[in-house]
Amino acid sequence: MHHRETHTVEVAGLIRHFPLFEVAPGVRIAIFNMLGDTYVVKAAAAALAEQLRDVRADVLVTAEAKSIPLIYEMSALMGLPYVVLRKSYKSYMGDVIRSETVSITTGRPQTLFLDEKDHRLIIGKNVILIDDVVSTGSTLEGMQDIVERADARVAKVAAVFTEGNGDWSHVVALGNLPVFVDGAGS
Amino acid sequence: MHHRETHTVEVAGLIRHFPLFEVAPGVRIAIFNMLGDTYVVKAAAAALAEQLRDVRADVLVTAEAKSIPLIYEMSALMGLPYVVLRKSYKSYMGDVIRSETVSITTGRPQTLFLDEKDHRLIIGKNVILIDDVVSTGSTLEGMQDIVERADARVAKVAAVFTEGNGDWSHVVALGNLPVFVDGAGS
Repeated sequence: MHHRETHTVEVAGLIRHFPLFEVAPGVRIAIFNMLGDTYVVKAAAAALAEQLRDVRADVLVTAEAKSIPLIYEMSALMGLPYVVLRKSYKSYMGDVIRSETVSITTGRPQTLFLDEKDHRLIIGKNVILIDDVVSTGSTLEGMQDIVERADARVAKVAAVFTEGNGDWSHVVALGNLPVFVDGAGS
Repeated sequence: MHHRETHTVEVAGLIRHFPLFEVAPGVRIAIFNMLGDTYVVKAAAAALAEQLRDVRADVLVTAEAKSIPLIYEMSALMGLPYVVLRKSYKSYMGDVIRSETVSITTGRPQTLFLDEKDHRLIIGKNVILIDDVVSTGSTLEGMQDIVERADARVAKVAAVFTEGNGDWSHVVALGNLPVFVDGAGS
């Protein structure tokens, strides 16, 4: 095996080894899954909350599911309510706002839904968009699209990691994950 | 309107008004959604963790998505790792164990997936199953089925609410939600 199997990172002071996964021929990404890692969520939420303390915001917004523990912990630390955009429609959601995105992990389109009660919560508000990894920016664009159509304003974007060589200067993040092309970090 | 629109409950010392939603002709349930309600999650997690403190368990297990903040907070309070059974398969999950359930809210079948790394985590362990609402018991059965096929053992079941008139004596819960039939609590 000339391919490495894992990518070792420091996240908010903790060391983790993320498995590598091929998303296209010769292209692999490091899989970061906070679900189940209470230590990383605690540490990352504290680090992000500190970096965001001077941002004037009313609500935190993310998309389900992997970032839910993070946004919950940030909500508790920052004293702000939060909203989770869902990936499937359920009839109790009422009148929803929806937006299409494409997942880098699956390559498939997915739809984000803002339910009616959460729409009422964010109208006219300043929101911080939260994600675990900002990569192609597709999920981020979907979240931003929904927030703006809900008559709210994106005050800041925050993620645990950015991924790849994009211009991520507008994203508050704790680190960057390389994209591995033909075995080399890009 | 002779139908009530909401059902008022106390949950871990907090008062909430849950919207009622018709799931079959003449049958309505109270919709409890902890996503976004940081106060209820904090309070319910503390109350459940206290009631579970004498249970010998190694891991907490739930199904995505609404119970994720609860299990995260319980994990932090109880010092136990947790596992989230997912509702869609993603290729980075490896060899999964799956089980079919039926949602009371949607009436549709859904599949729960235990991914490979989480399977390794729970083999031979005692687990506590966590859910927001235990109603028909279908999700619970699906979780139990997966846990047992993963060579783990269910030590206890805990939920914020049980729902309806079933025998819930085996479930550690903070309250019961009535099922509303033709406008009357059943």
